[in-house]
Formats: sequence, structure tokens, C-alpha cells
Amino acid sequence: MKVGDLIEIKKDGKVYRGVLMPHHAFSGRNIIVIKLENGYNIGIKVDKNCKIKVIKSFERRSAKKPKIPFDENKKTVALIGTGGTIASYVDYETGAVHPAATAEELALAVPEIFDLCNIDAKILFQKFSENLSPKDWQKMAREVARQLNNKKNGVVIAHGTDTMAFSSAALSFMLKNLNGPVVFTGSQRSSDRPSSDAFLNLMNSVRVALSNIGEVVVVMHNSISSTGCYIHRATKVRKMHSSRRDAFVSINSNPIGFVNENGIEFFGGYRKKTDGKVKVMPKLNENVSLVYFYPGMTREEFERIVEWKDGVVIAGTGLGHVNEDWIPSIKRLTRQGIPVVMTTQCLYGRVNLNVYSTGRKLLKAGVIGGEDMLPEVAWIKLMWVLANEKNVEEAMKKNIAGEISERREIRSLHAKNFI
Amino acid sequence: MKVGDLIEIKKDGKVYRGVLMPHHAFSGRNIIVIKLENGYNIGIKVDKNCKIKVIKSFERRSAKKPKIPFDENKKTVALIGTGGTIASYVDYETGAVHPAATAEELALAVPEIFDLCNIDAKILFQKFSENLSPKDWQKMAREVARQLNNKKNGVVIAHGTDTMAFSSAALSFMLKNLNGPVVFTGSQRSSDRPSSDAFLNLMNSVRVALSNIGEVVVVMHNSISSTGCYIHRATKVRKMHSSRRDAFVSINSNPIGFVNENGIEFFGGYRKKTDGKVKVMPKLNENVSLVYFYPGMTREEFERIVEWKDGVVIAGTGLGHVNEDWIPSIKRLTRQGIPVVMTTQCLYGRVNLNVYSTGRKLLKAGVIGGEDMLPEVAWIKLMWVLANEKNVEEAMKKNIAGEISERREIRSLHAKNFI
Repeated sequence: MKVGDLIEIKKDGKVYRGVLMPHHAFSGRNIIVIKLENGYNIGIKVDKNCKIKVIKSFERRSAKKPKIPFDENKKTVALIGTGGTIASYVDYETGAVHPAATAEELALAVPEIFDLCNIDAKILFQKFSENLSPKDWQKMAREVARQLNNKKNGVVIAHGTDTMAFSSAALSFMLKNLNGPVVFTGSQRSSDRPSSDAFLNLMNSVRVALSNIGEVVVVMHNSISSTGCYIHRATKVRKMHSSRRDAFVSINSNPIGFVNENGIEFFGGYRKKTDGKVKVMPKLNENVSLVYFYPGMTREEFERIVEWKDGVVIAGTGLGHVNEDWIPSIKRLTRQGIPVVMTTQCLYGRVNLNVYSTGRKLLKAGVIGGEDMLPEVAWIKLMWVLANEKNVEEAMKKNIAGEISERREIRSLHAKNFI
Repeated sequence: MKVGDLIEIKKDGKVYRGVLMPHHAFSGRNIIVIKLENGYNIGIKVDKNCKIKVIKSFERRSAKKPKIPFDENKKTVALIGTGGTIASYVDYETGAVHPAATAEELALAVPEIFDLCNIDAKILFQKFSENLSPKDWQKMAREVARQLNNKKNGVVIAHGTDTMAFSSAALSFMLKNLNGPVVFTGSQRSSDRPSSDAFLNLMNSVRVALSNIGEVVVVMHNSISSTGCYIHRATKVRKMHSSRRDAFVSINSNPIGFVNENGIEFFGGYRKKTDGKVKVMPKLNENVSLVYFYPGMTREEFERIVEWKDGVVIAGTGLGHVNEDWIPSIKRLTRQGIPVVMTTQCLYGRVNLNVYSTGRKLLKAGVIGGEDMLPEVAWIKLMWVLANEKNVEEAMKKNIAGEISERREIRSLHAKNFI
């Protein structure tokens, strides 16, 4: 029995049929993982009550090389690979899992996609997302516009999850007049693991890419016990867990909707796609700092970080505060025309510089209140605004890509289950 | 009718009796706020159907100056004022709300406390919490130990909410062998506002201070629709909303319990108070940086921040990653004996440097994995460990004050109500 063989396992009166996957380092010793015909991976504990037989060996199965199908009656979605766990590919010859190196490997990683649409796959680059830079966001934006202006119904970007929320927020500001959905997706567990979310995230992303949304969104698993994903507005989403499959959470906003095999359920308003052409405004002023304030961080430390910068975003405490020692330094920056934007490291809630005297002093020192923007989104926005808008303060306070939302109430911030 | 008068309002067949509070800038024009006899504030919309009469004018009410009672049959709790919204005091003579300047004002802010115990109040200092520094944590730790070693059953520290989680975490490491509960509390709305949480937080904190807990905890409102508070372990709690009364959330851990007028319900294990004397180990090495990584943050920026530091905590992405460009700089630090600790900016979840190659390279460069510690808690711990422990790596990986928890599953991270 070799990796890639189609096998059948009988256990406790049940029959499981699927392709044998490579053994994963995180799986138990007696666990074997098979990929079922519907695309899901399951892990089965092998004991003496199990009966296993090989239905078709890999050599016979793979005699006819898989080909990328094309059906002219179906819509076409562009699938852009940028790296990350989702773009990993199981090599049944060697048993290894490696990054999809070619467009074919990427497209064939989840062949079930072809039931939904045609796929035009492209490897834009292959990087762990922690190694991406703003230059990579610009490349992605240009490629997405090229694809959407070339008769694709939508675009799916396979991306590492670590900085996916940064990249997708950046594209939200760079892409104007979207004539189709731009969907970022990733996976928290590689596709050879029994609990892999790669298959579901990719299938649901393609469903969203075929919709009438005209926004940049992140489509990721919504819970560990469903086949569905939330559709998050890219400027409101944050990776809030290091390893869970439902790590992506909309902050200060509901997700746009929910998607599973039955389709999309929308929770509220969203921007619909247009008929025109997508415009790209990829320019950024990268000389902007994001500074997390903490008690004991001195004015000198702050000054060293922001020296020679063209803009500064601070993640302050509570309603948007820093130690009042910093205020003279901040005033000096704003007097030189360097915008200083205040956000809150609470993440949830809105900045309000009118409640306490520290806030009022910051306002007087020329600080721009960042409303309910996430610190990292305000940082990306400031880079974009400095390169594209004349009135920086006005632009920072205006909702450009869904990054500032109306006031609302949520019921509780506590994780659902405790106790 | 003047502020401080005891008044009665008849409206829609109901009668409300209480002390007229100053008009708050955030309340509507026709809203008057009264403090009921049970200590709660309510706002009532005044219209032509309301009947208002003065029961007792302030001058007559205040003829006998309030005095701090003492009942020798009751336990005694120390109430330490450090500033912040909770320690504000309504001056019925002027109608103004100002910080409690004397121990009497602090103790009498919520006179209902005296039904529970005797209060020994003290103003340690009066600062907005964004202006506190590690020196202030040391002052607090020494004062708490002095009080607990002087026959107090417990200590309540009234503190601004902005950096309360920092201060309370610091005291968790500094105070050893606790012979009574150390309870931090604050308020998100000042005591003249109809929605003020000051009364409930203080009452519930005193209830906890009378318990058998031997830990530093944060007691804050658990929801906007209950009279109860969660008891959070100080090393696991974070202010997660800029303005909500239930802003404090336990991360990667359940709260220790729930408290309201019916008593305390414990959710799990906690450390019980000892019989001995409290020891203070207040030393810190303040020369430690906390660095939030973001894409495009260059190695040069990182180097400028950590230059001449004795320790560095990084809030990386996902399982604990940074751009691989940083790795040579990190290696240079660890070779010089400067510890570099990795945490995750996801906040939820655990660092794992064994899954991806970036993590393995970081491990090889000498990075210490920060388990499931919050970035700011790891930063405080490293300052404490550098000043008090010989083997820094061993100490950082060991659970000292509840800051590292066992692996566990939570059901969902999404705010409960959306949709």
C-alpha cells in the first residue's frame, strides 16, 4: 500500500474509500489519512479490527495524467497563487507535500473546483506571507486588475494566513471600481492533514468569486464544526488565533455573509460589482510607522522610531491615549505636516479623543482620530492616502473601503464557550 | 431643585427616588440622572407627564457630614486609589465630578461598601493610567504587601482601565505568597453617568477581596445586562474594547469566576491565599522592548528599536513569525546573551515554532517561544525575570503566575451576536 493508492478501509461496520495521503508528522502513529472522493480528508485509527484493501494502485490510477478541463458554458475564475499553506500540493510519487510550483499543480490541488467553474491558475510568487512586503501587494493588485479586466468573473488569491489581512486590506484601497469579487483565502492546516481546511476554504472562495460582490474579501472557515465560511470585509478582518481554522474574525463589523455548498447568505449591505473596468491605484508611501504604545515606553523611544517618517499611526490605549510625555513630540511632528493617526490597541471599539483630558490634549496637538479602524488597517490606509490624496486628514476620516463603520453594539466579546 | 437634592420623580405610574446627579455632557438634553438608594444611577427622560418634587434639599441632607463607619465585627479591606474614572467623586456642592483627592472621598464614593466590611482607604497617587510607568507598579506592589501584612483581608486597587491589565500583570509577578486577594478594578463610565459601572465594579471587587483567593485578579463587569462581574486572572486579561463596560476579556483562559450580590461562582482552579506573610520582589529590568512586527517593517527599523536593550519581546504573526530578513539581527542579539521572546499578535492561541521553516529558523537563531502568553504579559515577565531569575530561558517557559496555560479549546472567537 503506497501513498496515492485508492484504498478501502472497513472498520466498525463502516466503509471508507479514498486516496492514501502521506503520513503527517502531527498525526498519531496509527492514524492514516485518506482523501475521500468528495475532497475531504479524514484520519482513521488503524487497529486489528480494520480491514484495508487497495482498490487501484497509484501507478494504474495515474496512467492518464490529470488535465485541466475547460467548459465553455461555465464562468471562469482566476486563481492566483502567492504561497502559503493553501497552495501546497501532495506529490503522490514521493509522498511529500510541497508548494504548488506550477499553475497546473495549483489548479489540480482541489479538482472539485472544476464542477463549479473553469479555473485560470497562475503562480504570481511563492512566499510565506510573513516575508511579503508592500511591493508584493502592488504586484497582486496589478495582477487582479489584469485578470478582472480580462473577462474573469472573479479572482481567488491563495495566500499565507499570517499577513493575509494586511494584503487584502491593502488591495481594498488600491483597487477601484471592482467589476468582480476579489477573494483572499488560505489554510491553517496543510492539505495532507486530516483536519485540513484547504479544500473547504478554496471551494467556498470560488463560490464567492462567482457572486456579484464588488469588494475585496477574506473567505475562511467560520467554525471548526461546519462546512461553511464567513465572507469578511478585508478592511475589518484580523487573524485572531495562531492555529484555529476559524481564526479570522471581523472586528467592529459583521462579516458580509456566510457561504457553504448551499450558496451565500448575506448578513448586511455590501458593494455590488460594477460593469466598468477596474482601476488600480497601487502607489504607497511606505515611509510610515505603526507604533504600539505601552506604559514605560519613553518619548525617546517613540522619537527614535518615528524619526524621518512621513506619517505615524499609533495604537494607543483605551479610547486612544498615550503617556502625556509624548505629546510635545507628537506636536512637533504635526507642526512639520507629518500626520499622526490614533487607533486603539483594544482593537474593538472606537477612538474618542473628546472624553478625557489626555485625548483632548492629543487633539490639540494635531492628532487625527482613527475612528474604529484596526491599527494595521489605519497604517496601510495612511500609506495609501499619503501617496494618492491631497487632504490627508479628510481622507483618513472618510470611509474609503469599508474600513470605518457606523456605530453599533455587539453583545459580548467573550469566547462563547467558557464554562 | 439642585444637584445633591433628594428628589422623587413620578412617571408613567412609577415612582423613582434618588439624589439628583450633575448633568453629564454625554446625556441627552432632557435626561436627568438620579442615584437610587441602592447605589445605581438611572437616567430618566423628563417630559410633561413627569412630576418631580424635592424630598430633602442638599443643604438639609448634608447637615450631618458623612463619616467613615467602623464595625469591629466586620473584616477590613484596604482600598487603594491610583486614579482613573473609578476614583472620581461627585461634589454635590458644585455639581462637578473630580478625582477623589482624599481617602475619605474615595471611601465615601460608594457608601454601600460599608454594609460588606470596613474600608481602610488610601490615595497612593492620582494618575490617568496611560501615564503610569513600571515605577508606579513597584509602588503599588509595596503598598499592597504592607496592607496585606497589616491584617487586611484583601486589597482593592481603584485604577484607570487603560493600562490596568499591565499593572495587575506586573503585580502578579512581584507579589509572592499572597495571604489575601489583590483585586484591580476600574470603571469605563464615570460615576455621574446613568450607565456607570463604578458602583457595581467596586461592590463586586470588595466581595472578591473578602474571599479566599490568593492571586492578583481584575474584577470588571461581565456584560452590559447583568449586575455581575468576571474575576479575571491578571496575567490572562486584556482590555478588548475602548468603551464597553464589559471590555475586559480573559484570553486563552477562562475567568477564575463570576461574582454578584449572591456571591462568587468559581469556574475552575485558582490559588488559595496562604497563612504566611506576603513577600515583594519588585525589581524590574526596564530596558526591554516590545516590538509588534508588521509586513514591510525593515530589519533596520527593528535594529534601531532593540539597540542597547537587555531583552526583546516580539509580537509576531500567526504561530510566531517575522520576516526572515530579521533572523540575522535576532541571531546577533541572542549570541550577545540578549533574550528574544516570541509571542503572537493574534493574541489568541499558542506560539509554535516547530510547524513552519520560519519558526524553525527562529528557534535555531535562539528565539524563546512565548507559549500562549499575551505579548504585553511576556514583556512584563521578561523585565521581571531579567531582574530576579538566573536562567532566563527556563523562567520564561515556566508558568510563574498563571501567565502560561494548558492547551484548551474554545468554541468560537466571533462576537456572540452578529446576525
